[in-house]
Amino acid sequence: MERQDESDDELFGGASRRDGAVEPGSPALACERSCSPQRKVSGTMRRNDNYLPVAGEEKNMDVDFINTDAMSNESIPMKNLYADEGSPLYSRLGPYFTDGRRRVDYVLAYHIQKPSSIRRQPSRFGDNGFIHRLRRSMSMRSSRAPLQPKEDPEIAAQEQRTDYNENDKRFRRDEFEENLLETGLQLEKDEGSKIPGIGFLKVHAPWNVLCREAEFMKLKMPTKKVYEVKQGSNVVEKIRLFIHKVTAPLHPKVDANRPQSVKPLSHPFSREKQHLFDLSDRDKFFDSKTRNSIVYEVLKRTKCTRAKYSMGITSLLANGVYTSAYPLHDGDIEGVNAEANDRKLLYEEWASYSVFYKYQPIGLIRKYFGEKVGLYFAWLGVYTQMLIPAAIVGVIVFLYGCATVDGNIPSMEICDPRNNITMCPLCDRACSYWKLVTACGTARASHLFDNPATVFFSIFMALWAVLFMEHWKRRQMRLNYIWDLTGFGEEEEDHNRAEYEFRVMKKTMRQDNSTPKGEKVKLTCTDRMPAYLTTVVMMGFMILVTFAIVFGVILYRISIKAALHMSTSTVARSNIRATVKTTAAIINLIIIIIMDEIYGAIARWLTTLEVPKTDKNYEERLIFKTFVLKFVNAFTPIVYLAFFRGRLVGRPGSYLYVVGSYRMEECAHAGCLMELCIQLCITMLGKQLIQNNLFEIGIPKLKKLLRRRKSDLEEEVNKTLQRHEKDHMLGPFTGLSPEYMEMIIQFGMVTLFVASFPLAPLFALLNNIIEIRLDAKKFVMELRRPIAAKAKDIGIWYNLLRGLSKVAVIVNAFVISFTSDFIPRLVYQYMYSVDGTMHGFVNHTLSYFNVSDFQPGTDPIQPMHLGYKVEICRYKDYREPPSSSTPYELSKEFWAVLAARLAFVVVFQNVVMLMSDFVDWLIPDIPKDISLQIHKEKILMVELFMKEEQGKRLAARDNHNLDNFASHSSANRSSPRARSRPAAQDVVWENEHHEREANGSPVYRV
Amino acid sequence: MERQDESDDELFGGASRRDGAVEPGSPALACERSCSPQRKVSGTMRRNDNYLPVAGEEKNMDVDFINTDAMSNESIPMKNLYADEGSPLYSRLGPYFTDGRRRVDYVLAYHIQKPSSIRRQPSRFGDNGFIHRLRRSMSMRSSRAPLQPKEDPEIAAQEQRTDYNENDKRFRRDEFEENLLETGLQLEKDEGSKIPGIGFLKVHAPWNVLCREAEFMKLKMPTKKVYEVKQGSNVVEKIRLFIHKVTAPLHPKVDANRPQSVKPLSHPFSREKQHLFDLSDRDKFFDSKTRNSIVYEVLKRTKCTRAKYSMGITSLLANGVYTSAYPLHDGDIEGVNAEANDRKLLYEEWASYSVFYKYQPIGLIRKYFGEKVGLYFAWLGVYTQMLIPAAIVGVIVFLYGCATVDGNIPSMEICDPRNNITMCPLCDRACSYWKLVTACGTARASHLFDNPATVFFSIFMALWAVLFMEHWKRRQMRLNYIWDLTGFGEEEEDHNRAEYEFRVMKKTMRQDNSTPKGEKVKLTCTDRMPAYLTTVVMMGFMILVTFAIVFGVILYRISIKAALHMSTSTVARSNIRATVKTTAAIINLIIIIIMDEIYGAIARWLTTLEVPKTDKNYEERLIFKTFVLKFVNAFTPIVYLAFFRGRLVGRPGSYLYVVGSYRMEECAHAGCLMELCIQLCITMLGKQLIQNNLFEIGIPKLKKLLRRRKSDLEEEVNKTLQRHEKDHMLGPFTGLSPEYMEMIIQFGMVTLFVASFPLAPLFALLNNIIEIRLDAKKFVMELRRPIAAKAKDIGIWYNLLRGLSKVAVIVNAFVISFTSDFIPRLVYQYMYSVDGTMHGFVNHTLSYFNVSDFQPGTDPIQPMHLGYKVEICRYKDYREPPSSSTPYELSKEFWAVLAARLAFVVVFQNVVMLMSDFVDWLIPDIPKDISLQIHKEKILMVELFMKEEQGKRLAARDNHNLDNFASHSSANRSSPRARSRPAAQDVVWENEHHEREANGSPVYRV
Repeated sequence: MERQDESDDELFGGASRRDGAVEPGSPALACERSCSPQRKVSGTMRRNDNYLPVAGEEKNMDVDFINTDAMSNESIPMKNLYADEGSPLYSRLGPYFTDGRRRVDYVLAYHIQKPSSIRRQPSRFGDNGFIHRLRRSMSMRSSRAPLQPKEDPEIAAQEQRTDYNENDKRFRRDEFEENLLETGLQLEKDEGSKIPGIGFLKVHAPWNVLCREAEFMKLKMPTKKVYEVKQGSNVVEKIRLFIHKVTAPLHPKVDANRPQSVKPLSHPFSREKQHLFDLSDRDKFFDSKTRNSIVYEVLKRTKCTRAKYSMGITSLLANGVYTSAYPLHDGDIEGVNAEANDRKLLYEEWASYSVFYKYQPIGLIRKYFGEKVGLYFAWLGVYTQMLIPAAIVGVIVFLYGCATVDGNIPSMEICDPRNNITMCPLCDRACSYWKLVTACGTARASHLFDNPATVFFSIFMALWAVLFMEHWKRRQMRLNYIWDLTGFGEEEEDHNRAEYEFRVMKKTMRQDNSTPKGEKVKLTCTDRMPAYLTTVVMMGFMILVTFAIVFGVILYRISIKAALHMSTSTVARSNIRATVKTTAAIINLIIIIIMDEIYGAIARWLTTLEVPKTDKNYEERLIFKTFVLKFVNAFTPIVYLAFFRGRLVGRPGSYLYVVGSYRMEECAHAGCLMELCIQLCITMLGKQLIQNNLFEIGIPKLKKLLRRRKSDLEEEVNKTLQRHEKDHMLGPFTGLSPEYMEMIIQFGMVTLFVASFPLAPLFALLNNIIEIRLDAKKFVMELRRPIAAKAKDIGIWYNLLRGLSKVAVIVNAFVISFTSDFIPRLVYQYMYSVDGTMHGFVNHTLSYFNVSDFQPGTDPIQPMHLGYKVEICRYKDYREPPSSSTPYELSKEFWAVLAARLAFVVVFQNVVMLMSDFVDWLIPDIPKDISLQIHKEKILMVELFMKEEQGKRLAARDNHNLDNFASHSSANRSSPRARSRPAAQDVVWENEHHEREANGSPVYRV
Repeated sequence: MERQDESDDELFGGASRRDGAVEPGSPALACERSCSPQRKVSGTMRRNDNYLPVAGEEKNMDVDFINTDAMSNESIPMKNLYADEGSPLYSRLGPYFTDGRRRVDYVLAYHIQKPSSIRRQPSRFGDNGFIHRLRRSMSMRSSRAPLQPKEDPEIAAQEQRTDYNENDKRFRRDEFEENLLETGLQLEKDEGSKIPGIGFLKVHAPWNVLCREAEFMKLKMPTKKVYEVKQGSNVVEKIRLFIHKVTAPLHPKVDANRPQSVKPLSHPFSREKQHLFDLSDRDKFFDSKTRNSIVYEVLKRTKCTRAKYSMGITSLLANGVYTSAYPLHDGDIEGVNAEANDRKLLYEEWASYSVFYKYQPIGLIRKYFGEKVGLYFAWLGVYTQMLIPAAIVGVIVFLYGCATVDGNIPSMEICDPRNNITMCPLCDRACSYWKLVTACGTARASHLFDNPATVFFSIFMALWAVLFMEHWKRRQMRLNYIWDLTGFGEEEEDHNRAEYEFRVMKKTMRQDNSTPKGEKVKLTCTDRMPAYLTTVVMMGFMILVTFAIVFGVILYRISIKAALHMSTSTVARSNIRATVKTTAAIINLIIIIIMDEIYGAIARWLTTLEVPKTDKNYEERLIFKTFVLKFVNAFTPIVYLAFFRGRLVGRPGSYLYVVGSYRMEECAHAGCLMELCIQLCITMLGKQLIQNNLFEIGIPKLKKLLRRRKSDLEEEVNKTLQRHEKDHMLGPFTGLSPEYMEMIIQFGMVTLFVASFPLAPLFALLNNIIEIRLDAKKFVMELRRPIAAKAKDIGIWYNLLRGLSKVAVIVNAFVISFTSDFIPRLVYQYMYSVDGTMHGFVNHTLSYFNVSDFQPGTDPIQPMHLGYKVEICRYKDYREPPSSSTPYELSKEFWAVLAARLAFVVVFQNVVMLMSDFVDWLIPDIPKDISLQIHKEKILMVELFMKEEQGKRLAARDNHNLDNFASHSSANRSSPRARSRPAAQDVVWENEHHEREANGSPVYRV
């Protein structure tokens, strides 16, 4: 008791004393916690927090509030489901305190040493360590969420140090819990749970705290006042209703998703203005998501100050004082205990493959998970929806290629054996001359992806990307309006990370004497320089590694090809190209997937080294690094194929050699587009299949299995677990970054090289239909409930998307002009063709080479392979013939084609950019109806306050006039009429008001 | 009296009754206005507006407020300068009511018919009409400000109709004034002013109204709480102080401009939270700018409803019920009456050429004119400042050109008479062959602007533009912070324009029976279609006119040149080029300036035709149109010179002819860059000189002169004029659009073609130094005070700047690669030069022409002009020689150079864009210290409220506990200690709090 009071005085006025509660914990309670540490006492720690709203003024309005509040906390009859049932089972298994009434809003878990069952310490730690390490390696590919214990090596060391000091941890917990009580939260301990070694601290936020915090957080809550949402003129409205009726089967059966004709006016919650809100059902007023975030807000603010340096919840988690912190799910998904709840509804109407064709219940997702998660799924939905037209057009373009392949003159010429063109050998010595007609198949296949429709398609996709961004911006704005986020300023996360505070503390201790007092210690660039240097060096090194790997695959291809050429088996020879291409692509794919994981880990490690100050900072840096590395990793082989392969070959007689005597790869006659296409196809399909199936389905299952085994519980026992125990079994929520990152890379695939692979949108679409439900299942079933985070937009990801769609324009311009044969064909047709057709194009693209000009030792061993002596062979390039005055120099045609290619790039880039900007400018960012509604809301709000103002003033004047009439009658020249009939006037005003509303006065019908 | 009461009942509860004042005007007052219309009674219309703030709650805090308020309006001792003097002169001449106490916050002027001095009606109207028309034509080039009478033809017609109905106007005025009184404003009429025929309605906002409106407008006002502004670490702070000391002479001697070490915390004004604010001096709490905007807000809201359709102040002004509305200047600038006031300070420290080298007192400008004007001058200042480095680098680049002109091999080769190159004739028949050496001068001059430094300079300027934008964004953010605009959401102007309302009314009347009731009538696209069509057609036509004019100038140049060539005078011949170039450029300039004015008028006319709904809408559309037209007008000749001239010439033997037999112009041998440069130089200098001197200095002087003559007053009489009469003499404020537009066009000149004219930034800099003071003088001396408008940013202008700087990159890429000889030189040096130098370049660029291939009738009349027979002449192009198999075809060199040019465009554009984006990404939009300060402010605000909360709760609990102790003692387990010593605790808390502040706890030293 002494200690309690003392500490209370010590802490007086500290940061955690914001609510100004002045009484320390009641004696009984204090004893419950500190005097009798029994094993299975789930002691309810209560305190009478006699919070009162601002007294006076509106006495009549506050009476109710004061009374209920003063009587007893939460003693009003509960109207929610569970309380009505009053069943002990529900109260035990549902998310409630043992009294079955107070809802558990948040749970903190921690290790306990059970005095009764003394287990061997080392084994437990060993066990734990193993699981920990396993989980760490499993979660490698996902970034860290704010409230998860961090894996910084230094902090880990710290953890080791403090690990053996269980008492110290308990003291800290005690202090933290005391401070939480000070803020008005109510706590209940559960140390006798079915999960051995884990104690739970259940946190409940009573009504006062909810109100107070909602006011501080400026939470916008719906008021009693509703208004009619008009979607537009009558015709528009009818069309909208019709569309909605037609698409009815596509809508999930969720109330929150129905279009509403009225919307309550929202206003930041304020206790002074509580008469505005419908507080008749206090349990429902703040939904579980809001309660969670309120408690989280309080937790973040509460600090342990008694230790050497003040520790917030982040530090406590990082130091293992608490092992985890999470809000609870609403209820069970299946089984006998599964009452109707939002989670179950989500499971049935969203997180199921059987509803893949339906819209997502975004409103419900937001209601359950918060705005940030809601925005992710809304974005994913918009993206997937937008992929439908892109996929359709892509398929049409592909079919156009298929349909026109027979009428394509260049491939017809190649396939025509009468042309009898002898080509120069593809490799030194081993290879011999070959006939162009053997490349017939490749040429025909190339046409599928290299035809004029492709040019149209890449312009289409550039505009598609812009439309997608615009559509998303509007959708986001609409969601902001529906979710009452308009006017919500993005609060920057100002909560320092535990690692940062730890580093600052270390620096403070080091510099304690050297720096002047009062100067706040912070990490400067100098402190971070080693980390920055490491980052730069490592990033550079990693990028080099990627290049080296790609180069390795090239060497593999060259050497295998040479080896196969040398083999005498004709079967092997005929399958050479296909074999090499496919194996190389698969090797690339496997390397990409492996390196993806490694790069993710390296990015996390580097970011942790940099000790970013806040979580937002951490996330941004991590995203940047991960993006760069993963992007380079995924796109280097593709970029090589598109822009470098076949360009650094040299020419017959002076080939370019690498690593001794390997000649660089050439492209097939019809260009490298075909190979680019194969590579893209394999990368996209493979990545999606392996990452989705293996990582997103397989590994979580494995994880869950391991966690289950660890807790040694049977399925049956599971059924009797309490809510917070069940949730403890689930995986921690690790942020949305990995999900976004995956989609961004996919977006890159879809837009960047779309000119060479029109089927990419189709593949992406198919993947995303699965992806949505997969992610949904993960969120609903596999993970603990995330803390509801507010967000107005998708943040940095939007910028990345924008950047990608800009880069895509340039890349596509280059792919069309340099990788495909589109420009040479055009140039031939309009500059060189005799009859304006493509006849003779193949001949025009092939230069002549006199075989006597081969460098010694590079001429084919079997010159007579084709059955006749070859004197002049052909190769694909624009060079002067051997008879020219400057043999084998680049010819005039080369320069003309190059100029045309470059001109195309300039024109394409600028025209598409201009069109994009025009579309961007044309489509307003805020939908017209939304901006009207927002405006209407503002006006209604002013009206409401004006009315209130008037009411107050009339009342006040009456009072005042009656009180002061005698003393101020000389100064006060107002007519007595006013005083005599205030009530009547009020009625008049009201009538007027309603009349105006009915008449459709301009003020109301905006 | 009867009428008064009646009307009051009628209006009861209307929009203007927001303050809920229930007493009609006092009998005496009503009589003063309506019963005795004497000529020189400046009747004070007062009413006792017994406004009370929300009563109760904080009784102790409100006592003061209620007392002073209830005693008498504004009866507390005034502390401002004038009131202390109490001199009748000041009270008459200063901006006060006749009582010398109540400040005039706004003035409405109107025509009166004086019964005593009956002047001939027609003459007065005629007079007026003339002045009106004159002023209209004078103000053609400036857009319309919100509160100026509009010149829509329809409204003008309306005006004609109502003009003769002076009684109707008076009734409307009476009603409007009544409604103004209802809102709590205080009015005073002055119909006996020294300006005959004009009556003034002076408006004063008493304290109640100010408070109420400030609350509704959510005006952020400084609270009593100040906090320390820390600019950074000690070192940074010291450097800042040092710089400030060094630049001390550059800072204006204005208090508001000093860097302050403390800043008051701001909070939206609220009467409930009035204890937060320092209300000790009520006259100073709201400064004159704020008072004006508050009154303007009330005026906008007040409506005349008794007429057929409700009229706001805009409609009243448009219909001539009032002739003008303006707030008053603070005082005189010079003369005996000139007390120290902000306007005088601005005049001395800002609006004077003698302080041209100083920084602008932005804080004071904002304080006096409001944020919007403040931002304009801040932007202009930043732009001018940023021009300094650009001008310096530009001059260096120019000097580099001058220094290297002698070592420039191509011009040396041209000037070397030994080369003896015979050129083909420049025109048919009349001209003869000429020697290249005669182009020596031009070639040397060209080098000044066409050298490698130019390429560097255009990259520099592209980055400069990005840096400028970034710098401005940061500056804007800093100003937002200093001016407490953070968190201020841009309120869209929802005030309908008078023209729009008039049109809607007409439509309503027309459709009264056809449309269903309740549907709000608005202007649809169908209504506006004719206007839109007109706009499109007119804009297209105007652009065609511009092209036609440019073409006309080209024809002038060609024909004059041909004529001069034909003349035999050698003097004329030698000066041909210079004469033609200069006269053509001057003609272009004159046309540009004239068309500028015409286009401005057309844009205004077209926008008015479209009947935009709000003023913001009007402004946006007007800006768009004006921008397009003025831009096309200013840049068409320049674009022609840069990209088309000399390219559509054809070749000897097959020249291109226009309009019969005129050959298209050729460029000089060294490219068109020189002529582009001359054109730019003349356009920039001429435009600036003429527009600044003639329009901005000359015409306002003329206007003022005319207004003076009109009112027939001598200078002497002027001195005895009252403030509102003096201000009535000034020109109306017509918005910032013309100022911005001028600067944007200049920015275009500076960035778009900077590759060809590195001195452009210097000219712009010199112009802007004058421009700032010119604009300042205009605002301080020539114009009525604008209504203070809030703005967070410069709006659409920022987007235009951004767009221009993007276009500039592309334009410069093309200028360098296509207009200048930079790329051909590079190509020659690295591809064709024998020894890697430029020797032989001139020869390489010239093709051969066999004179026998001239088309019949186009060969020179004097083939022997040079003294020998010419068989082969040279011309500048890359074509095959006559001896080739394809004579006069484009040669391989041509294609190689073209490819190089295009490659340069691609590389330049993408590299510069990438660099720009990188710089954009690198520099945070919000300066670090500002974001820290904003964050600190937020935390302090929460602290403040927390403290307040605690105080309230303690008090409330005390009350509550004392009241309810008996009834709740069982439920209330709180320790009695809390109840026994609340005061002591409060003190402890306070002490703690101050200690923490002193200690530099982390919460305070952010």
